[in-house]
Amino acid sequence: MGLNSLAAKMMEIAGPENVLTSELDMYTYSYDSSFHSGLVQLMPEVVVKVKNTAVIARIMQFAFANEIPVTPRGAGSGQTGGSVPANKGILLDLSCWDMIEEIDAKNLQVMVRPGVVHSRLNQALDPYNLFFPPDPGSTKMATIGGMVSNNSSGLRAVKYGNTSQYVLGLEVVLPDGEVIVTGGISSRAMKSVSGIDLTRLFVGAEGTCGIITKVRLKVLPKPAARGILTALFDRLEDSGETVLEVFQAGILPSGIEILDSTAIKAANLFKPELNIPVAEAMLLFEIDGNRPSVEHDGMLLQDIIKKRAKNVEWATEKDRMTKLWEARGVIGSASARVKEGATRVFAGEDITIPLEKVPQALKRIKEIAKKYGIIVVIYGHVGDGNMHTAPIIDPADRNEVQKTLELAHEIHRLAIELGGSTTGEHGVGIVRRPYMREEHGNALDLMLKLKKTLDPRGIMNPGKIWPLEGE
Amino acid sequence: MGLNSLAAKMMEIAGPENVLTSELDMYTYSYDSSFHSGLVQLMPEVVVKVKNTAVIARIMQFAFANEIPVTPRGAGSGQTGGSVPANKGILLDLSCWDMIEEIDAKNLQVMVRPGVVHSRLNQALDPYNLFFPPDPGSTKMATIGGMVSNNSSGLRAVKYGNTSQYVLGLEVVLPDGEVIVTGGISSRAMKSVSGIDLTRLFVGAEGTCGIITKVRLKVLPKPAARGILTALFDRLEDSGETVLEVFQAGILPSGIEILDSTAIKAANLFKPELNIPVAEAMLLFEIDGNRPSVEHDGMLLQDIIKKRAKNVEWATEKDRMTKLWEARGVIGSASARVKEGATRVFAGEDITIPLEKVPQALKRIKEIAKKYGIIVVIYGHVGDGNMHTAPIIDPADRNEVQKTLELAHEIHRLAIELGGSTTGEHGVGIVRRPYMREEHGNALDLMLKLKKTLDPRGIMNPGKIWPLEGE
Repeated sequence: MGLNSLAAKMMEIAGPENVLTSELDMYTYSYDSSFHSGLVQLMPEVVVKVKNTAVIARIMQFAFANEIPVTPRGAGSGQTGGSVPANKGILLDLSCWDMIEEIDAKNLQVMVRPGVVHSRLNQALDPYNLFFPPDPGSTKMATIGGMVSNNSSGLRAVKYGNTSQYVLGLEVVLPDGEVIVTGGISSRAMKSVSGIDLTRLFVGAEGTCGIITKVRLKVLPKPAARGILTALFDRLEDSGETVLEVFQAGILPSGIEILDSTAIKAANLFKPELNIPVAEAMLLFEIDGNRPSVEHDGMLLQDIIKKRAKNVEWATEKDRMTKLWEARGVIGSASARVKEGATRVFAGEDITIPLEKVPQALKRIKEIAKKYGIIVVIYGHVGDGNMHTAPIIDPADRNEVQKTLELAHEIHRLAIELGGSTTGEHGVGIVRRPYMREEHGNALDLMLKLKKTLDPRGIMNPGKIWPLEGE
Repeated sequence: MGLNSLAAKMMEIAGPENVLTSELDMYTYSYDSSFHSGLVQLMPEVVVKVKNTAVIARIMQFAFANEIPVTPRGAGSGQTGGSVPANKGILLDLSCWDMIEEIDAKNLQVMVRPGVVHSRLNQALDPYNLFFPPDPGSTKMATIGGMVSNNSSGLRAVKYGNTSQYVLGLEVVLPDGEVIVTGGISSRAMKSVSGIDLTRLFVGAEGTCGIITKVRLKVLPKPAARGILTALFDRLEDSGETVLEVFQAGILPSGIEILDSTAIKAANLFKPELNIPVAEAMLLFEIDGNRPSVEHDGMLLQDIIKKRAKNVEWATEKDRMTKLWEARGVIGSASARVKEGATRVFAGEDITIPLEKVPQALKRIKEIAKKYGIIVVIYGHVGDGNMHTAPIIDPADRNEVQKTLELAHEIHRLAIELGGSTTGEHGVGIVRRPYMREEHGNALDLMLKLKKTLDPRGIMNPGKIWPLEGE
């Protein structure tokens, strides 16, 4: 189909005001936050801004009939190329569909459209003393649609798990334009075991099986109190041992974060007033619950941590907590500071390692970084073994770019070797396709069969998740 | 295939000592705990006791080639006919495969075979100060394989959710005999978003998509303390309001159970020393956490509950907690006592209602019971809207049997009408098949497509979940 007739058709379906076709616009939509999208330019042919299920259904009917690829997109804050159009076609921008349709406080659930930004949802829930527990870190960017599509987790997964377990139901437009509702067509139930679990077939499918147009989410009563503990370790093993001992003591922190020596250095460079002493690792624990519970766990936590750590500090007062959390909060922006004029790129950045092997993984990642002569800042959700490794490079230096790709490859391989996963929360997208076979063996064949059943013409977000020939 | 040659083939594959063929044995396996299996006799042709993945794979290859139905079975404690062979063929008894393969405490997970009984798993975890949170009530019977296949939840789902969210990975024998591992072929990761979520396609599929031969479960640090509160209400609405207010106060109890007036009566008849005063409803709350947390929530809980309830009692001492919990504990056995010589049957017994509508549902269920002149004892997991309605009848009375079936039908319809589900935790099995279309609309068509992809010859536990022609 010619480009003009495709655009004309989209204008007819969605209204001309919602259709973008200029080269500059297409260029904008060729990026997400991945390293990959900076290296390989993947542009859509047309962008449609949509906030209507019936319109999306018509677009999908048309795309299905004409075998045109469709890529759904939220905030574009993903780090795997998941929302850039790998094979041209139509890009559906759902970020504008940011309606919180209903806060059904009495049934502990909310109904939202896919474009709702995470922080706004929690703001809206606050007056009801409710909250949506998963926190992707990128709370001011990430959309609920993106979180559901990637099964995001982030800072609080240790205690509260991932997005998947909060999704009670979905409205989904299938590749052929049919609209279904999962979890019961008119359900407000908090649990049901009726039928196979269609909901979780779309959660984490990264838009490769259908377009999520509405999400019914379970929410929880908001804990009354919080406490933050920070501690420094001179040996990586000690930080790992400490995490295990905290669990053994019966404490389930809402979050356990780690900054390694490079991340500490980056934080200090970015905010010299933080003035964190030199150490191999910094651990940050967040405890939540009622006030006496937080105080109790805080005391117990300090007892455990002081055995192996230095500079242990525990705070329950708001300003001090904010201060202590700052080292973790700034790390995304700070990491690039470890090298003059360099940039932090997202490559091999969210592997998961079995808890017991986290110290070993940290050492191996440092060795890999050394081998390639690339600075890698390491931090992450150590409470569930989810590590963020941030290569700091000059993206204009082709040699460094090549070395970074090789480094990321070795980090991915390391994750599989240690019994972990190449992606704990960011998804497969384009960049982890090559590891699908190694990670899943013949289970991948079943995934492919199911994908074929759901999307027989292969038009839904092609080029993502599923390995290409020879990969 | 003739019966003798089928049995001979099974003996060849699994060893003669593991194959049952006598009529008495077949009769035994024609029952689960459902009302249905007492009314309609559904017998297998051959029973194979199996504890080996390779053997199961060979059985499935043979069954696939010869289009012979295969029904997997755990303890047979299900209440929907899910584990009785609706269409003859081979019954695989997995209850003997009760090996806890590994407690990997450092990675907060366990590897078990499907026949492990729930209470034994938690006993084995206890020395590690870990626990598997879902508690199906039938803890001394239910197997982990059955719990995963039904996505069980039970007493602690309010706080800890259902079985699904603890399943990190599965080994599954597919209908054609192929063996896959979901969640990563050699993974010990606590989280991964690599690929579509195959794991949760088998969780809750009631054995209609494959045979679960191994389960990798996430476990949690065990809370140090518990508290139990009981309270009586003269108005059903007050019990409903109280539950909502507890959530609004930021309290997340590990369990909230209800006994209605008939259940209170039954408990008193069964154990006169309980001596519960006459009331419309009794609520039981379980709070867990560290000791100060439990005490804090206990105080707050009492303040809230005393507004509307009488006979409020709070206990944290072990013997007293056991005593308070007794009214709930005995109800399964006690309910039949409300009518001389009668039996409690499982029909329409686990609907889920949106929290807000629970009082309304309780009233309507009482009206339905009155209409049919059947005594219905009502209790259940009111914290997530999951009600257990127990008809107390003489199963030899054909008139009462017929009325019970009609009553169960109205209860199922009521659940759907109120925005709930026909099954909160027991599954569809045979008995909720007729409600699948009403509950899921066209989403059922997608389920059927996926089922066809997974089981093209329809040999996996036929007659379960999927509506028959005209249903």
